[in-house]
Amino acid sequence: MGMIGGGKDAFIGAIHRHAAFMDGLIELACGALSIQPEIARESGKQLFLPQDRIYLTFEEMIAKEKALPEDKRMDFVTIVTPNFAHFAPAMLALENGFHVVIEKPMTFTLEEAMQLKRKVDATGLVLCLTHTYSGYPMVKQARAMMREGTFGKIRKIYVEYAQGWLSRLSEREGNAQAAWRTDPKRSGKAGAMGDIGTHAAHLAEYITGLKITKLCAALNTVVEGRHLDDDGGVLLGFEQEATGVLIATQVAAGEENNLTIRVYGEKGGIEWKQQEPNTLLVKWLDKPMEVLRAGSNYTSALSSFATRNCRTPGGHPEGYLEAFGNIYHNFAQTLMCRLDGSRPTPEMLDFPGVDEGVRGMAFIDNVVASGQSDEKWTTFSV
Amino acid sequence: MGMIGGGKDAFIGAIHRHAAFMDGLIELACGALSIQPEIARESGKQLFLPQDRIYLTFEEMIAKEKALPEDKRMDFVTIVTPNFAHFAPAMLALENGFHVVIEKPMTFTLEEAMQLKRKVDATGLVLCLTHTYSGYPMVKQARAMMREGTFGKIRKIYVEYAQGWLSRLSEREGNAQAAWRTDPKRSGKAGAMGDIGTHAAHLAEYITGLKITKLCAALNTVVEGRHLDDDGGVLLGFEQEATGVLIATQVAAGEENNLTIRVYGEKGGIEWKQQEPNTLLVKWLDKPMEVLRAGSNYTSALSSFATRNCRTPGGHPEGYLEAFGNIYHNFAQTLMCRLDGSRPTPEMLDFPGVDEGVRGMAFIDNVVASGQSDEKWTTFSV
Amino acid sequence: MGMIGGGKDAFIGAIHRHAAFMDGLIELACGALSIQPEIARESGKQLFLPQDRIYLTFEEMIAKEKALPEDKRMDFVTIVTPNFAHFAPAMLALENGFHVVIEKPMTFTLEEAMQLKRKVDATGLVLCLTHTYSGYPMVKQARAMMREGTFGKIRKIYVEYAQGWLSRLSEREGNAQAAWRTDPKRSGKAGAMGDIGTHAAHLAEYITGLKITKLCAALNTVVEGRHLDDDGGVLLGFEQEATGVLIATQVAAGEENNLTIRVYGEKGGIEWKQQEPNTLLVKWLDKPMEVLRAGSNYTSALSSFATRNCRTPGGHPEGYLEAFGNIYHNFAQTLMCRLDGSRPTPEMLDFPGVDEGVRGMAFIDNVVASGQSDEKWTTFSV
Amino acid sequence: MGMIGGGKDAFIGAIHRHAAFMDGLIELACGALSIQPEIARESGKQLFLPQDRIYLTFEEMIAKEKALPEDKRMDFVTIVTPNFAHFAPAMLALENGFHVVIEKPMTFTLEEAMQLKRKVDATGLVLCLTHTYSGYPMVKQARAMMREGTFGKIRKIYVEYAQGWLSRLSEREGNAQAAWRTDPKRSGKAGAMGDIGTHAAHLAEYITGLKITKLCAALNTVVEGRHLDDDGGVLLGFEQEATGVLIATQVAAGEENNLTIRVYGEKGGIEWKQQEPNTLLVKWLDKPMEVLRAGSNYTSALSSFATRNCRTPGGHPEGYLEAFGNIYHNFAQTLMCRLDGSRPTPEMLDFPGVDEGVRGMAFIDNVVASGQSDEKWTTFSV
Repeated sequence: MGMIGGGKDAFIGAIHRHAAFMDGLIELACGALSIQPEIARESGKQLFLPQDRIYLTFEEMIAKEKALPEDKRMDFVTIVTPNFAHFAPAMLALENGFHVVIEKPMTFTLEEAMQLKRKVDATGLVLCLTHTYSGYPMVKQARAMMREGTFGKIRKIYVEYAQGWLSRLSEREGNAQAAWRTDPKRSGKAGAMGDIGTHAAHLAEYITGLKITKLCAALNTVVEGRHLDDDGGVLLGFEQEATGVLIATQVAAGEENNLTIRVYGEKGGIEWKQQEPNTLLVKWLDKPMEVLRAGSNYTSALSSFATRNCRTPGGHPEGYLEAFGNIYHNFAQTLMCRLDGSRPTPEMLDFPGVDEGVRGMAFIDNVVASGQSDEKWTTFSV
Repeated sequence: MGMIGGGKDAFIGAIHRHAAFMDGLIELACGALSIQPEIARESGKQLFLPQDRIYLTFEEMIAKEKALPEDKRMDFVTIVTPNFAHFAPAMLALENGFHVVIEKPMTFTLEEAMQLKRKVDATGLVLCLTHTYSGYPMVKQARAMMREGTFGKIRKIYVEYAQGWLSRLSEREGNAQAAWRTDPKRSGKAGAMGDIGTHAAHLAEYITGLKITKLCAALNTVVEGRHLDDDGGVLLGFEQEATGVLIATQVAAGEENNLTIRVYGEKGGIEWKQQEPNTLLVKWLDKPMEVLRAGSNYTSALSSFATRNCRTPGGHPEGYLEAFGNIYHNFAQTLMCRLDGSRPTPEMLDFPGVDEGVRGMAFIDNVVASGQSDEKWTTFSV
Repeated sequence: MGMIGGGKDAFIGAIHRHAAFMDGLIELACGALSIQPEIARESGKQLFLPQDRIYLTFEEMIAKEKALPEDKRMDFVTIVTPNFAHFAPAMLALENGFHVVIEKPMTFTLEEAMQLKRKVDATGLVLCLTHTYSGYPMVKQARAMMREGTFGKIRKIYVEYAQGWLSRLSEREGNAQAAWRTDPKRSGKAGAMGDIGTHAAHLAEYITGLKITKLCAALNTVVEGRHLDDDGGVLLGFEQEATGVLIATQVAAGEENNLTIRVYGEKGGIEWKQQEPNTLLVKWLDKPMEVLRAGSNYTSALSSFATRNCRTPGGHPEGYLEAFGNIYHNFAQTLMCRLDGSRPTPEMLDFPGVDEGVRGMAFIDNVVASGQSDEKWTTFSV
Repeated sequence: MGMIGGGKDAFIGAIHRHAAFMDGLIELACGALSIQPEIARESGKQLFLPQDRIYLTFEEMIAKEKALPEDKRMDFVTIVTPNFAHFAPAMLALENGFHVVIEKPMTFTLEEAMQLKRKVDATGLVLCLTHTYSGYPMVKQARAMMREGTFGKIRKIYVEYAQGWLSRLSEREGNAQAAWRTDPKRSGKAGAMGDIGTHAAHLAEYITGLKITKLCAALNTVVEGRHLDDDGGVLLGFEQEATGVLIATQVAAGEENNLTIRVYGEKGGIEWKQQEPNTLLVKWLDKPMEVLRAGSNYTSALSSFATRNCRTPGGHPEGYLEAFGNIYHNFAQTLMCRLDGSRPTPEMLDFPGVDEGVRGMAFIDNVVASGQSDEKWTTFSV
């Protein structure tokens, strides 16, 4: 793979590398790791890249890699830059025949997302969007149970993503992560809702298979001096009459990365917490709660979508990097099938793509519109 | 005490008795335990009441008890009937000089609540409203920390009360509890919001000391054939710019009595779960989470409002009945102070009263109004 | 009931009263609440006892109560004095025809315990031993599942009781509880093993129905200057080839009252923690763990021994006082059956008695002997 | 690295690869992946090894790799065969100048372990023993707190490792893992005590810095027909008068990989559970429990030994593979220092080595001897 962004000191670039390397299927072949040449060079060196595949711009990387023999060039690009710098390299990569992995939110605007979608559809290339949390095996288990109708008709969906790290005006205190994520020019029109609200919305739609149809949002900028929302609550309507609540906040002081989802149907429901990801609570109206665990022996109780995404037996906790790794792993296996002409299994194809990217950008548009509206309900439009 | 309602097979009457008896300060002196004479008589006998103090109507009870010598008559009435039958006995008791304990919601309508308030103010009698959950010591601890400004300005308040017991149309299946609670003629204009939403709203205001100023509600009747809301989500505005979310649902299949509150200020916050009530999680922006426990030795860390409401040392779990008992205990001690002319301490006076009853009825009115409105925000009016 | 010991400031006397009063079946009729006359009088007054039933010695109480007409006198005595002062009042009560409730350990020596056993057998009176923890509904549920062979043959039993309150030499710092419990003249030949080890051993035998047959103990006096063991670990052999480990310590600094038991059979097992008593974890070799909860709706999953000892529906936590209350409640119902000539149900008879008291005293003897022995195994003898 | 053992379908070989690859510092250069040539070849191909570096025996691999130019040959071997096949390849690798990573227990016998120790001492090569659990950041945090005397003198150490996967005679049911681990010819003289008891003993010594000085073991073969212990309880004495209990069992039906350690000193203590590895409970005698979390912001509260072994910020759970990866990462960084002549930091050197391997083998010898002895205490000898 060729990485765009992710130079030393970047947060998410390192995460992508851990995740990609873990299973021994993917190597870092080249990179345009920073727009600052010095950092690009140093970072490439630290990552053991050969001198001639440390590039200074993504344009250079894509052009030069394309010029290499097919069996030498990178197989795909992975884009880990801030939001405003997703679209251009993604589009250029697709235009030049490279598959793409891209951080969420997929683009800076919904319009860009639509363009990428059209390009992906036209080229038949694969775009993988790293909505990490859908890579956890017990999230996949929850989705499988919902699909099978285990709990009857779905009624209620509660999802929340609470962090505390923006409780202060850290963007003015030298925190680079905070700086770009709260800057409308780099992050987009939403703050917390774009950064983590999109994860929550995706998780809800992924697990339930139901799409959000309307929403009513109250967005707040809690910390004075900040330029984007850092907090919000959203009432949700879904397909098939399900309803729910979405909370996303970055000012819940003392919270780390508290993403939690609960879904209830007629007969019971599930609860999953990202901070204890190997456990899926399965609640029942008429019998005791069950605790499903990733990697367990009672494999008959677990869907193949869950078991295929575990690397260890039960009791050996897997975490965030493994969930991230699952997305890369499934993406890589899909590409390998393309190479050898075989047909990827549904489990291999189970990673977020360009359609999820479009939904995410639409979520941002709709939730911001609702936040500014005096009417209760805003119809979710794409 | 004299009990109105609470005959055999009633749920909450038995709870009140356990709670009242626990500390040895209160005895059941008499009762009008059912409107069905046979049940009233049998229930009284089972409770070891003397024959002549088993009454068939609350009017009879109040009249005959008043006719007894002062040191023989009951000291107060406790009203544990369905909502529609709260006001009349409460008013009659107050008019005849008896203090009153009353189940929540205080009345059937806000107008009745206002009348009770005026009567209490006029007579100087004590009305105690059994919002049980504010009787837990760790709830009182949370309130004490908020009052002292431990976390700086309060920013976010999340409260939810999730039950699953109305996931089916149980009111048509012979469930007496379900029958009256989902019947607008007996329960009032709200279902879940009246039954448990009022608890959640009270808990939020009790802990933070901030009043709800506006709300945006989506109320649902999820189970077909039901006549009142059984589910809802509410976006909240509070005094001093705090905001929040309230969830109340009785169709979260598999949930028992999952009342949870989290409050975040500038420096940290608290989390309390009714189902693990002896623990208060205290989260901090800049240091590790602390786990405060009821009855602990490190008493300097706990407020007197918490410690005075524990009966056992740390590690001996106290529960719902003890929380309920604390409300009775504080109420009883307040009455005993009246009798001996002493001044009750702030800790003794720490039980919900007629003002909280009025707020609860106003919450019902406002949340139902918002639920029917197309405008996003409804100003909370009393 | 007539209480012996339990004057103001005593710990366990107050607990007994809360527990006894809770269900409205038992009243405090009289007391010999302290050997210090002033405290006995004041305590009696605080507890609303009539002047003439505040006694200064247990001999006086038993004599004068016996002289009252049968329908006026106390029905039983409850003995809440330190260990060395259990036997004399218990024996005198039995000799005078009174039933007895008594704190554990039952006596000061095994020999005294044997004498009580013979007296109980001879008189047919009821002796109830307050091993509180067997009063919890989910402990009873665990026992019921074991009895039914739910998990196949029982293999492993791990029980531990960890406290931290004796981590310092508190007996020299004015802590009255610590003073008598660490004093061989008042507590007996064992410290931690007598105070809490007996609870752990009883719980293990109660739940599994298997008796300890041999043990290997390492007892320690960790805090310098202390006169009894404050810590110990014990390897256990049980009937039917089950084995286990018992830990009892009062120097686990930071622990409150951490009593935990796990039992494993061929097919699965249970885990119960006193500090979260309403939950019973049920683990299975071949399927997901289940979480059984006290008071739940899925009553078919719960034994009548569990459900009869719950006062509230699921999600309304009951605690230590309710468990204690269950012992009093079952004892009281057994006595009421005697009064009206009916036959108590097995559920009513489910409280610890004189046999458990003898086993407890034998445990103390055997564990102390093993602690002093250089041989690995000491056969458990009574 | 060159891998010995770990062909397809082996459990621990795949784990080693995930762990080694994760940080991008280590590549699989060659392998002797199975003693069955067909499997060795297929496995090598699946792992993308070049044809000429897929070896059929470890002797061939070591010889041929040594013959390669220094910058082409493997830097170290990693040995992931069953216990009986650890010593020979390790010794041959050391004799030929290769560093070694080796699975625990280090050898088949204590004598072999002593020989390896002498060879390591003589050659100055690095031997890394994969006691995974000491790779977790919060284990390192616990160790750092103990070293700093945070809790005063250490008094009690409880460690247990409970699994259920050998509850049946799986070694006769085609389970290859069970087959070798319960076979004295391949596993050694201990079963559960060798497989997981050694982990528990190492964890206790690693965290506390105290060595076991005596022990009293009861070992059991619970499942009929098995040839080694599958269960045991051990009373422990440590240096500096600390005492403790170690439990290791593979017949706790329903347990996954429940490794838990608690250590108590004069002022408080710690609790860590492998199944929730990112949390360290810190208990205090005189103040509320604190919950330390891996990756947290309050870095001043965390030791550099903890923070250097986290890859993600708080709330992004890391697990077993990351802990395993930390051992490889620290080992690799130590080797890189050797290559560039710099001095590794104490944090880099923080991985188990040959001394821990010798202690582990001595633990096996001593615990088996104690299990067979009628005397209570066996002095721990090496």
